[in-house]
Amino acid sequence: MNLEEELNKILSPEQVTTNQTMREQHSRDESYHTPSLPDVVVFPKSTADVQQVVSFANKHEIPVVPFGLGTSLEGNSIPYHGGISLDLSLMNQVLEVRPGDFLIKVQPGITRTQLNKELKKHGLFFTVDPGADATLGGMAATNASGTTSVRYGIMRDQVRDLEVVLANGDVIHTGGLSAKSSSGYNLNGLMVGSEGTLGVITELTLKVHGIPECIMAARAAFPDANSAVEAVTSILAANIPVARMEFVDEYSIHQVNLSNESNYEEKPTIFLEFHGNEAGLKQDVEFMKDIVSELGCKDIYFELDTKSRALLWEARHNLAYSFIHGFPGKKLMVTDVSLPITELSGAILNSRKEMDELGLIGALVGHVGDGNYHALVMVDLTDEVELNKAKQLNERIVHYALKRGGTCTGEHGVGVGKIMYQQQEHGAAYEVMKAIKKTLDPKGIMNPGKIFSKE
Amino acid sequence: MNLEEELNKILSPEQVTTNQTMREQHSRDESYHTPSLPDVVVFPKSTADVQQVVSFANKHEIPVVPFGLGTSLEGNSIPYHGGISLDLSLMNQVLEVRPGDFLIKVQPGITRTQLNKELKKHGLFFTVDPGADATLGGMAATNASGTTSVRYGIMRDQVRDLEVVLANGDVIHTGGLSAKSSSGYNLNGLMVGSEGTLGVITELTLKVHGIPECIMAARAAFPDANSAVEAVTSILAANIPVARMEFVDEYSIHQVNLSNESNYEEKPTIFLEFHGNEAGLKQDVEFMKDIVSELGCKDIYFELDTKSRALLWEARHNLAYSFIHGFPGKKLMVTDVSLPITELSGAILNSRKEMDELGLIGALVGHVGDGNYHALVMVDLTDEVELNKAKQLNERIVHYALKRGGTCTGEHGVGVGKIMYQQQEHGAAYEVMKAIKKTLDPKGIMNPGKIFSKE
Repeated sequence: MNLEEELNKILSPEQVTTNQTMREQHSRDESYHTPSLPDVVVFPKSTADVQQVVSFANKHEIPVVPFGLGTSLEGNSIPYHGGISLDLSLMNQVLEVRPGDFLIKVQPGITRTQLNKELKKHGLFFTVDPGADATLGGMAATNASGTTSVRYGIMRDQVRDLEVVLANGDVIHTGGLSAKSSSGYNLNGLMVGSEGTLGVITELTLKVHGIPECIMAARAAFPDANSAVEAVTSILAANIPVARMEFVDEYSIHQVNLSNESNYEEKPTIFLEFHGNEAGLKQDVEFMKDIVSELGCKDIYFELDTKSRALLWEARHNLAYSFIHGFPGKKLMVTDVSLPITELSGAILNSRKEMDELGLIGALVGHVGDGNYHALVMVDLTDEVELNKAKQLNERIVHYALKRGGTCTGEHGVGVGKIMYQQQEHGAAYEVMKAIKKTLDPKGIMNPGKIFSKE
Repeated sequence: MNLEEELNKILSPEQVTTNQTMREQHSRDESYHTPSLPDVVVFPKSTADVQQVVSFANKHEIPVVPFGLGTSLEGNSIPYHGGISLDLSLMNQVLEVRPGDFLIKVQPGITRTQLNKELKKHGLFFTVDPGADATLGGMAATNASGTTSVRYGIMRDQVRDLEVVLANGDVIHTGGLSAKSSSGYNLNGLMVGSEGTLGVITELTLKVHGIPECIMAARAAFPDANSAVEAVTSILAANIPVARMEFVDEYSIHQVNLSNESNYEEKPTIFLEFHGNEAGLKQDVEFMKDIVSELGCKDIYFELDTKSRALLWEARHNLAYSFIHGFPGKKLMVTDVSLPITELSGAILNSRKEMDELGLIGALVGHVGDGNYHALVMVDLTDEVELNKAKQLNERIVHYALKRGGTCTGEHGVGVGKIMYQQQEHGAAYEVMKAIKKTLDPKGIMNPGKIFSKE
């Protein structure tokens, strides 16, 4: 069968391509994982298009791999078994804004900055902010999060309803418009984080928030990483409702300074943000100052105006890119464990020790309010020794976390990079996941080889 | 087969009973739904006990209906197909407190007041507060919520991990200890709200919160229900982070006054609570005062001391019981829809109109910050005309909500009372739920006839 010809019967010719450059663009993500070409790239314009493509693929047992912008970090969107790369970038419209209900309905191809641009008109914002300007469909598929989840929750917490095209071509809605429901099984939660292995997300209804009356950002530098992480746990224990609380080690700050022409002090640092009313923030900040100064922070800087605040968070968001651009020829490997807060300080110190022992270049950063941190390691993929060391680091970090009740992936998803830890992390529950996959996708066409090895 | 004899081979004799009084106690819940006797009541003391009972039941295709305290409102724990009522009240221990991680691990039979008593020692509290002093296992099974979910979320948001015994006897853990994870499918969310139809919850690891520095409660009386609900939406729109926001109509206040010897003004009223630091609350409260006075609220009363605050919320929590005790011989029927906030005011006014037209006795109350409200209707079950009117009211209220993107049940679950609306609410997604049920419980022994009709 000529796949392109067959798909041309379903969609218009400009929606189907086997162009080599286009296939290459859809063969990789932003990670160190090996690229793999799709047979064809398809650009649906509607749910009906997706439905037709998926039904066709299911009939002929052809893999379908949803693709947003390819910013995933565990090979989540790489079509390792060929087939159709389903690029959703043409489905990027805002379908409905309901400001009074704090809801917005969008198509999956819209990115988070496009979304926030639209929301700003209504005094609203969308909270989840992964490093990349990812698509909302991709963010839902991997259950993404970012710097604000300590206050506003992760991607799964924002999803009120999804329209999903299942392997059999059925179109379902996983939720509704009300803030809560005890009606039937929680398919919202099941689909979020399923990485395209159970269906294709074609519409999202998302919770949005009012822009806070007052925002205050700060950075606090500490003599060592231990005191910095201690500060985080103390702030949480003191019940101070921080909106963001990011740990960046001295290596990260160094890289940030290099590529942003900033001159932040090159010490382990916590970037913080507070959202609320003016009087409340003032009291929170005073309390926080007491805590950090007791832990050896001599200098706490407040970014008061919108511009320096924006610069601070831009620096944080661009950190991974600072490394990528700073080490041409190397690729980025990012670990992504999350642990209970009381285990975090030990985990971060241990990771630094492991990196130093292995002689790897990199830094540690984290959404530490959630117990989630990343080792960013720059790897020359042609250097087998270095690549193996990086893989070893990842493995050691994951085992450390799993032994302490943590997870192998806090926000990047399983993709192919974390499959080998699924059995260890989930035990008998992994069989339940496999059974659900088998039930909803009996022919195994939906993003095969992700979360589970292809049978 | 003599069921009691066979179960006596598995458990000690004092854990198995066919005593008539005991069976009757396990034949009903707090609702108007018709009681139905189990064949036997079993009291497991451990996960291993549950595992053995469930494996035995699965082998012989005997229904297993988990039972907490029987406070459900949609017949969720009534054993309509006989079999085993699995009473988890002996499994009511706190297994572990991790104050630094804001986590507690408990057995399913513990009630929320028992849990909070333990947590108070650590300066912590558990947020979810349904009207009844339900068990935590039951609360997870129905995805319960209450007055605080507008701020802290519903039951599903508090569950970090569950230990669940599946129909095949496998024991799984649905999550872990870290605050977030993108690892595998979200089984936490799937099990919460599954009402014992997918497995028996034998352990829960729950998120807990620090007791706020400052708590302030208030009640604001309005000239009519419309302005009261308008006030709620305005407070939400103003981004004021209320911790509780409850609507109680004039009929409710009347009943509260009767049974609590209070003398709250008998007008549509909003009960509010604010949690935070002192300075922040002061500013929030000032803002709130402006909003409510613009909507015709002339009198706003602050309950400043712990005692009058406790009385206020006790009155709210005991409201259903005030009606039950106030109308001996009648049973309580509670509707439970939830809608997008902008549809709430219309829904509440319409419900009042329907109740008056049908000539039913009752009141309207709600967790209106979530768009969730209840009509409390007192019904003489021997009066077929009255019972039919009450059922009609329920149906009209559900249809009104479903037409506007709402749900037929915000927090009580489906049980048997909301099965007839599942197809309408979920459409094709209901088939997915059925398929998951079939996969995890192929013989249909787990709480048969709930959420889905028994095949």
